[in-house]
Amino acid sequence: METGVTTELYPRERPGLVRDAAARAGLGAVLLTPGPDLRYVTGYDAKELERLTCLVVPAEGEAFLVVPRLELPAAQESPAGSLGLELVPWDETDDPYELVARRLPRGVRTVGVGDRMWAVMALRFRAAMPDAGQVAAGGVLRGLRMRKSAAEVAALREAGAAIDRVHRRVPDLIKAGRTEREVARDVAEAILAEGHTRVDFVIVGSGPNGASPHAEPSDRVIRPGEPVVVDIGGTMPSGYCSDSTRNYCVGEPPAEYREYYAVLEEAQRASSAAVRPGVTPEAVDAAARDLIAAAGHGEHFFHRTGHGIGLESHEDPYIVAGNREPLEPGMAFSIEPGIYPGPHGARIEDIVVCTEDGHESVNHTGRGLVIVG
Amino acid sequence: METGVTTELYPRERPGLVRDAAARAGLGAVLLTPGPDLRYVTGYDAKELERLTCLVVPAEGEAFLVVPRLELPAAQESPAGSLGLELVPWDETDDPYELVARRLPRGVRTVGVGDRMWAVMALRFRAAMPDAGQVAAGGVLRGLRMRKSAAEVAALREAGAAIDRVHRRVPDLIKAGRTEREVARDVAEAILAEGHTRVDFVIVGSGPNGASPHAEPSDRVIRPGEPVVVDIGGTMPSGYCSDSTRNYCVGEPPAEYREYYAVLEEAQRASSAAVRPGVTPEAVDAAARDLIAAAGHGEHFFHRTGHGIGLESHEDPYIVAGNREPLEPGMAFSIEPGIYPGPHGARIEDIVVCTEDGHESVNHTGRGLVIVG
Repeated sequence: METGVTTELYPRERPGLVRDAAARAGLGAVLLTPGPDLRYVTGYDAKELERLTCLVVPAEGEAFLVVPRLELPAAQESPAGSLGLELVPWDETDDPYELVARRLPRGVRTVGVGDRMWAVMALRFRAAMPDAGQVAAGGVLRGLRMRKSAAEVAALREAGAAIDRVHRRVPDLIKAGRTEREVARDVAEAILAEGHTRVDFVIVGSGPNGASPHAEPSDRVIRPGEPVVVDIGGTMPSGYCSDSTRNYCVGEPPAEYREYYAVLEEAQRASSAAVRPGVTPEAVDAAARDLIAAAGHGEHFFHRTGHGIGLESHEDPYIVAGNREPLEPGMAFSIEPGIYPGPHGARIEDIVVCTEDGHESVNHTGRGLVIVG
Repeated sequence: METGVTTELYPRERPGLVRDAAARAGLGAVLLTPGPDLRYVTGYDAKELERLTCLVVPAEGEAFLVVPRLELPAAQESPAGSLGLELVPWDETDDPYELVARRLPRGVRTVGVGDRMWAVMALRFRAAMPDAGQVAAGGVLRGLRMRKSAAEVAALREAGAAIDRVHRRVPDLIKAGRTEREVARDVAEAILAEGHTRVDFVIVGSGPNGASPHAEPSDRVIRPGEPVVVDIGGTMPSGYCSDSTRNYCVGEPPAEYREYYAVLEEAQRASSAAVRPGVTPEAVDAAARDLIAAAGHGEHFFHRTGHGIGLESHEDPYIVAGNREPLEPGMAFSIEPGIYPGPHGARIEDIVVCTEDGHESVNHTGRGLVIVG
């Protein structure tokens, strides 16, 4: 990654922003182990290992990064190495939890632990700091991570373009007689070939499997006239994720499929059109749900309309009933209603970003059913 | 996967074994979210998602699996679906943590949470069960997972054979003028092509990067006379992992490298030869370390000698000073001493299994330096 990109995507002020947010939330410190939070704050894409790597951000004082000595060169070479953070290596027979506890300011009563920290690590911290309560650090991080910067939105656009290129290859991969698994393997290769560094998921749901939104690709053979749901995503070198669902059919689908697919297209459009600052995620969900219910398919749309996306495939904000936290510019999430009446189903998914006055989709392939073969 | 293999690798009695171990440890219940513990106990390779999937194993009563309704078909089709477990689906607006708390027997004082459960989930469970303390469930699981069954050892052999095939391809991939990253990309493809379903790590450390045991593949160009450390591993369809390190050189390496490489080969052999039931991991570590120190390279071997392997690349038992829990038949772990004097380094790694009277290596490629180009 170029340094320029790194700086823009992972700006130097983030440890300071976390410190300020921690202080406002009444936390004495925030502890972040490898994963999306650590990468967001420092740019360091550290491996998730049993040896503790932990960014410690005290509400008062300087942040520091505890690393196994073995990982010290990797940490130094990562963007975290140029943030001016103190790097604190520990040796194979040290107790790094005690090391963190000793270095924290006295009187810390509550620490925020990263949402995805391993429970065994959180419990070790609890034992090393018996007087400090623990809360999820997500409360502090989500406010920052939900509001994407211009550089982050650009990274999501780049990811969207990459997964669009994969969808453009899909018509050549789906043929009657091939299995879902064969198609999925080719799609996974295309996800890497089109610029992702990691395949996050590949759903190829043919016929009845398309009616199960999270079906794993199976050895089921795709037959003529069967719709196929293709929901795919990966992670780019930037760390940002893609996610897009399109629908394919080998020849002409059943008539009733055409009918509800038209409803679905309208619902996906209406839900996207509802996105603008001040609107609640609940209302965006309802915009799709009400249309689908009005067409008699309410019970066939049994998942939320979307999820936030960024350094994780699924993150805040969730587009779901009950979420009344108003959208703001920079929030990025999927709009992916589905209709699953069986013995087939469909889902259309774009990643959209809330703009000053509406939304921008980062996916640009056609949303209509694609006839193949 | 064939049903026969599933049954053998993931036998039906495991939920009962966990229940018994939980009762012995004084835990009221064990809670396992997606990851290697859940797969070990049920065979279910569930996705790690923000929606809670959780196997609940009460010390008294029947185990049950809480799943998001969206994942119900996947859970039913997984090996977990044929264990006779009750599957308890929850809907998008339910609170699954409260659901688990309500269904647990009254009077549960301590719950074991899976070591790799996300902290945010453990904290949600804590809030839903304010009277129940939490401990890491690893204390209960590790005793089971450390002692591999014959089927698990067979799966590790299969993984070993697959990564051996990758190492046999490496001499064709390393050439002067290629970058570490180019080689690493080809190696990653070979890991998948040779039967793994996932690439877990690819280290290609040339010249000075070989002296940093966990260096990431970089754009550094490999030059003649430079040793290259290749440490690679992946996960097989069975769920079991491979991990092997070999050393390559484009032409003849420096003379001092040849000298310490001979020490390293001897240390790796001695450490493997020390493996047998009753011996401590600490002693296995010392067998390599003492030889390396005697040759004057003590400070150039600054990591433990090995780590357990199975459904995780790194798991118990760790072959490290301080670990005095005697080895038993079926324990599987890496033996991977290294010598890193700079401006180059070397590491030799096999996965070995403790047998009734010694050890078996699952890796069979030559351990000597491989001259390429």
